[in-house]
Amino acid sequence: MNLSELGEDVVVTRLTRSLHLDDRVKLGPGDDCAVVETAGRLQLLKSDCVVEGIHFLPDADPKWIGWKAMCRSISDIAAMGGMPLDALVTVAVRPETDFAWLKRVYTGLATAAKVYQVNLVGGETAKSPGPFFLSIALTGTVERGRYVGRFGGRKGDWLFVTGKLGGSIGGRHLRFRPRVAEARWLVSRFPIHAMMDLSDGLASDLPRLAKASRLGFEVDLAALPLQSGASPENGLRDGEDYELLFALPAAAKKRLELEWRRKFPSLRLTAIGRLVENGRTHFLGKGYDHFV
Amino acid sequence: MNLSELGEDVVVTRLTRSLHLDDRVKLGPGDDCAVVETAGRLQLLKSDCVVEGIHFLPDADPKWIGWKAMCRSISDIAAMGGMPLDALVTVAVRPETDFAWLKRVYTGLATAAKVYQVNLVGGETAKSPGPFFLSIALTGTVERGRYVGRFGGRKGDWLFVTGKLGGSIGGRHLRFRPRVAEARWLVSRFPIHAMMDLSDGLASDLPRLAKASRLGFEVDLAALPLQSGASPENGLRDGEDYELLFALPAAAKKRLELEWRRKFPSLRLTAIGRLVENGRTHFLGKGYDHFV
Repeated sequence: MNLSELGEDVVVTRLTRSLHLDDRVKLGPGDDCAVVETAGRLQLLKSDCVVEGIHFLPDADPKWIGWKAMCRSISDIAAMGGMPLDALVTVAVRPETDFAWLKRVYTGLATAAKVYQVNLVGGETAKSPGPFFLSIALTGTVERGRYVGRFGGRKGDWLFVTGKLGGSIGGRHLRFRPRVAEARWLVSRFPIHAMMDLSDGLASDLPRLAKASRLGFEVDLAALPLQSGASPENGLRDGEDYELLFALPAAAKKRLELEWRRKFPSLRLTAIGRLVENGRTHFLGKGYDHFV
Repeated sequence: MNLSELGEDVVVTRLTRSLHLDDRVKLGPGDDCAVVETAGRLQLLKSDCVVEGIHFLPDADPKWIGWKAMCRSISDIAAMGGMPLDALVTVAVRPETDFAWLKRVYTGLATAAKVYQVNLVGGETAKSPGPFFLSIALTGTVERGRYVGRFGGRKGDWLFVTGKLGGSIGGRHLRFRPRVAEARWLVSRFPIHAMMDLSDGLASDLPRLAKASRLGFEVDLAALPLQSGASPENGLRDGEDYELLFALPAAAKKRLELEWRRKFPSLRLTAIGRLVENGRTHFLGKGYDHFV
């Protein structure tokens, strides 16, 4: 049986089933990052990659390819409430590639690293006989009382998303801004029960958060914060929004909305629905009653 | 100008020139791993990759592809005197790949992880439109007084190599054993001044160690420990030996040779030459007087 018949999720789940030999490892690969206890602190570990022809087209601006590669991993560290720290860059590149093109990829990597205060500490460059591959491994750290996975949502929690969803293929999928400052502020001031970043689209990602929390959800499509020109369908399924999705107890909703507007006046925060009992997984809207 | 005109070393050097924003980062990418101070300890960070058609042929046993990918990074951690700890696996694979083949790659990864007590903590699986790509990011740790780079060699030090060199393309380039126990024992009991693992061949790697130490070297080709059937030329240039090369003060030579034979009776240890004043870089032998 080949991989396309199995579906990517199955492949990922079956193969990255982790092998843990000691109890320093706190969480498995279901979360956005691995969590490992190191010298009494929680270290976050994440790797990711972008591949030519899959994550970007050959004519994409190489600077934004580098930016995207670095920011995908930064976004995953943020999604667990963590601070990114040190990055390794692994590249496989055709020998006939123009050096100026590759330098521009690194400019994008280095720009993202500076903006998010990440040390580029090393890596490896190899030849590729085909497409360009760029893998980033990123470490981060999070305080013991602040780290958040996908699994801690409780019944009745409100579900929030930052920013606006949909239509990222028009350019934002390359140029997005990981929500590090926002996530750090959230976990330092509010009892965030569960959090993740939206990489595959709300319709794929929210069920994962709900499932990890053993709950269902109800989302009001009319409440979805959409990018200009995006339909609810775009908001649900386009993916690569890299916004935060999180669950917060109802008692904290008003205080969050008030303080958020003061702290991040230019970034929208939207309550899109709630976590409900296990089994109910609804996106509710006009002409729309999806089971996912 | 394209990458093949520039040469791989130039590309690696120019592009992995690291961006360090804080002084937790102790060393640059010239060494086998990056060294970062984390919670008062030294953390080693390394990433590497194997690419189909470059590091293995399509008909190679997938189990050994996984083994090799994991062991290349383990060997780099060992080369700095460290213990490997946690690994992330990033894979890009054609959708039409047979699932059993990919599972066997993971069997090789997991086997190496178990043998060397590495936790497989997570990773990412992506589609590739072309060759199979497998990147490993590995963390490790080393005691403050024990970590060894390439840079600390002193004039008069003896140069040692473990094992035998040459002819790895016959199969050892896939099935080699990283010298973790040997390196840990060396740095715990002897004043190792400089160390690295031999990945590109002694003729490429020794000049790097000497240069990092601002010294020259003299090696007696007749002393090279060679695999059966390998010529001195093979021993110098084949590469992928993944044996340790290290520099030790002359005063410790006899004690090392005595204790090594007791501790590792089945693994050869050979004094191949010495570090000498800067500028002299000689491989000396019959019909052979190479400047490198």
